[in-house]
Amino acid sequence: MPAQTPAPVPSAAAPPALRVALLGCGVVGTQVARALLEHADDLAARAGAPLELVGIAVRDASRPRDGVGTVIPRELLTEDAASLVDGADLVVEVMGGIEPARTLIRRAIDAGASVVTANKALLAEQGPSLFEAADAAGVDLSFEAAVAGAIPIVRPVRESLAGDHVRRVLGIVNGTTNYVLDQMSTHGLDLEDAVKEAQALGYAEADPTADVEGFDAAAKAAILASLAFHTRVSLDQVAREGITSVTADDVAWAQRTGHAVKLLAIAEQTGEGVSVRVHPALVPLDHPLAAVRGAFNAVFVEADGAGPLMFYGQGAGGRPTASAVLGDLVSAARDRLVGGKGPHESAYASLPVLPADAAVTRYQVRLLVADRPGVLAQVAGVLADHGVSIDTVRQTAAEPPAGTGTDSAGTASLLLTTHAAREASLAATVAALDGLEPVREITSVLRVEGV
Amino acid sequence: MPAQTPAPVPSAAAPPALRVALLGCGVVGTQVARALLEHADDLAARAGAPLELVGIAVRDASRPRDGVGTVIPRELLTEDAASLVDGADLVVEVMGGIEPARTLIRRAIDAGASVVTANKALLAEQGPSLFEAADAAGVDLSFEAAVAGAIPIVRPVRESLAGDHVRRVLGIVNGTTNYVLDQMSTHGLDLEDAVKEAQALGYAEADPTADVEGFDAAAKAAILASLAFHTRVSLDQVAREGITSVTADDVAWAQRTGHAVKLLAIAEQTGEGVSVRVHPALVPLDHPLAAVRGAFNAVFVEADGAGPLMFYGQGAGGRPTASAVLGDLVSAARDRLVGGKGPHESAYASLPVLPADAAVTRYQVRLLVADRPGVLAQVAGVLADHGVSIDTVRQTAAEPPAGTGTDSAGTASLLLTTHAAREASLAATVAALDGLEPVREITSVLRVEGV
Repeated sequence: MPAQTPAPVPSAAAPPALRVALLGCGVVGTQVARALLEHADDLAARAGAPLELVGIAVRDASRPRDGVGTVIPRELLTEDAASLVDGADLVVEVMGGIEPARTLIRRAIDAGASVVTANKALLAEQGPSLFEAADAAGVDLSFEAAVAGAIPIVRPVRESLAGDHVRRVLGIVNGTTNYVLDQMSTHGLDLEDAVKEAQALGYAEADPTADVEGFDAAAKAAILASLAFHTRVSLDQVAREGITSVTADDVAWAQRTGHAVKLLAIAEQTGEGVSVRVHPALVPLDHPLAAVRGAFNAVFVEADGAGPLMFYGQGAGGRPTASAVLGDLVSAARDRLVGGKGPHESAYASLPVLPADAAVTRYQVRLLVADRPGVLAQVAGVLADHGVSIDTVRQTAAEPPAGTGTDSAGTASLLLTTHAAREASLAATVAALDGLEPVREITSVLRVEGV
Repeated sequence: MPAQTPAPVPSAAAPPALRVALLGCGVVGTQVARALLEHADDLAARAGAPLELVGIAVRDASRPRDGVGTVIPRELLTEDAASLVDGADLVVEVMGGIEPARTLIRRAIDAGASVVTANKALLAEQGPSLFEAADAAGVDLSFEAAVAGAIPIVRPVRESLAGDHVRRVLGIVNGTTNYVLDQMSTHGLDLEDAVKEAQALGYAEADPTADVEGFDAAAKAAILASLAFHTRVSLDQVAREGITSVTADDVAWAQRTGHAVKLLAIAEQTGEGVSVRVHPALVPLDHPLAAVRGAFNAVFVEADGAGPLMFYGQGAGGRPTASAVLGDLVSAARDRLVGGKGPHESAYASLPVLPADAAVTRYQVRLLVADRPGVLAQVAGVLADHGVSIDTVRQTAAEPPAGTGTDSAGTASLLLTTHAAREASLAATVAALDGLEPVREITSVLRVEGV
């Protein structure tokens, strides 16, 4: 995965490997294991030392698992989680649930290992005591993956906003319910049908209670509130209301009044304290959260100095969650090695910076051409000659330039969009079009990005 | 500003203050100085030691400045920047420009001070040599404010994505041009008029060249590329095209083809190296960047594991930029004190978590009422009795519930939106409405957030 890191410059004395124990081998654990095994060199360069996966604790080592026996050596699996933890420098907990996760994390901390967890339920319930223990032991307890999957929110709030005052956090932190509400909005479905569709697509579980009743969002709200306001918030202090009472009619009325219905996790500071709640809410359509579609998540933060900020991305899934876990793991490794400073800049080589015409992009070209048979074929021929393929062509009667009274009879307007090609080829194509007999004018050339 | 931090629990041996030198006292510098002076206790709690502002270097100390002589003691100003730097633990450079900023930062680094800078031009031109010097001296050189103002992007990319592979970064990193393009799009203005409007509102400078020609975005593109790909990119390696050739017609056509025109800073890795460029581009309307309006900035990151991520917020302005500077300053202070671990959790007290009914929110209530004179007055009276004020009322003929054949004659539908009030008052209001004689049905109650 981290193929962008150039090979590390060999150093005189390579530091010894850090031993990584992985607890759990589900969707997230499998991706973490794969990355540790397949991108070992890159991760070592970033962490400052090799990260050696010493074992993966599972309940039943004999059960068949994707990737085990192929990418992941079977002998890494163990049912003895406690012994695995005892021999590790870094422990990654992606098993979920309260026990045995809590006991194992506690054991790791007490033995001086740093811990990375994606376990929101555990943090929402036992966070304070675990953080106290990590603090006392002087080890990291990192949890970026527990809040909003791949979306970096822990470092931005805790470090980037360390000199600011957070007033309010509004989060769309459950992709299932956001997908369901989005389907209700775009297709007029009622809740039941939208949930069925989400189940069919794998966005919702067979028992969707944790999502639709807001339990998952409430756990994340507790963690977000703790993070933003440095206040211990436990799950039972979160006022929770799911989306089960939201009707197709509610969603339709919301649109009529300029709103989208979203399930929000809200943490805000008032003069009296911190209010933490989860409930469906009408969000104005011009608010950035209203544009968060499908199964995506977003966390909107209002701070006194920074003003409004939003962090957007995928809040669930094996690879996105593994990305957050691995980011924490590399940071925790750096902390153990060099006090958080990371490897020296000079430990990295540098990639070549390409010249402008080596960029790959798409063009949208508008041009005025003579309105006669065969012109489009001529134009298309020019693109083909330059190895540029056409995505769409749109031909319309030319509009005469406003106010000029110019007669546009005999000309047609073409709008061409290309597939991705080299900047140099695209520029040469446009130059060739400009010289083509039936081309009256190249009206506009714009690149297309983000597709 | 950081009023959310509860008073620190006094510790036995308070660490000595860290001496902060501020270079520059413009819009950003003034806000940084104010925060250091007005929120000294909060910042000390977060940093782990007092941050003492020992002086502010300016070119002409006699020139009148907002806040100087009132909030900022005049005697803090000095024209002797070199001596100020020599006596500091932490140096904040917000003067801008290449010299004397470069020489002073270099002097600070060589003397072992940590440096926080918001100077994108300097980093785009001299970044590599400055980072090497900081590395050699073992000090921090932080620059969150130089990339996208208040938007946290440095830590997310460098730390949260440390275990992932960034493929592409697309940034709207210049608020002036985004505002101009947005005005062209929403009001059909041509470029010249939109720039004049931006100037009138203070979004564009009298000489808008740095913005509209893409120089500002190019400096940020160089920094973003360096950050995302660990590659040294200097300003002259960035292919740059401003928005001056974008016409009202282009913007109108973009909308017709389902796009928005945005000035993008692009850094992407191909198999051959890194492509870094700034140019106007068509962005599909369903892409999250298309929804970034007005003077806002956003950075969209595509990573192999995390997938798409977006970071959104204010990219300029005194207070937002100062927020990013202060975040860096607190982190740099923590690094000096305890190796980046930050103050212990136990150094903070905790805020009270409020009960659910203490939350302050707005309600949108839909109800069916008897369609006769005086009913609206009765309903409004119930709200007034509970101290809840009405934002909007919308009355329509009631729609009979679909498929029931129910006769809706004699009923009207009301849609009430309240101003912000306590949850307890709102709930009591709804309960009272439910008991009101002319109220046939409370169809829906939803909270409104994000306004």
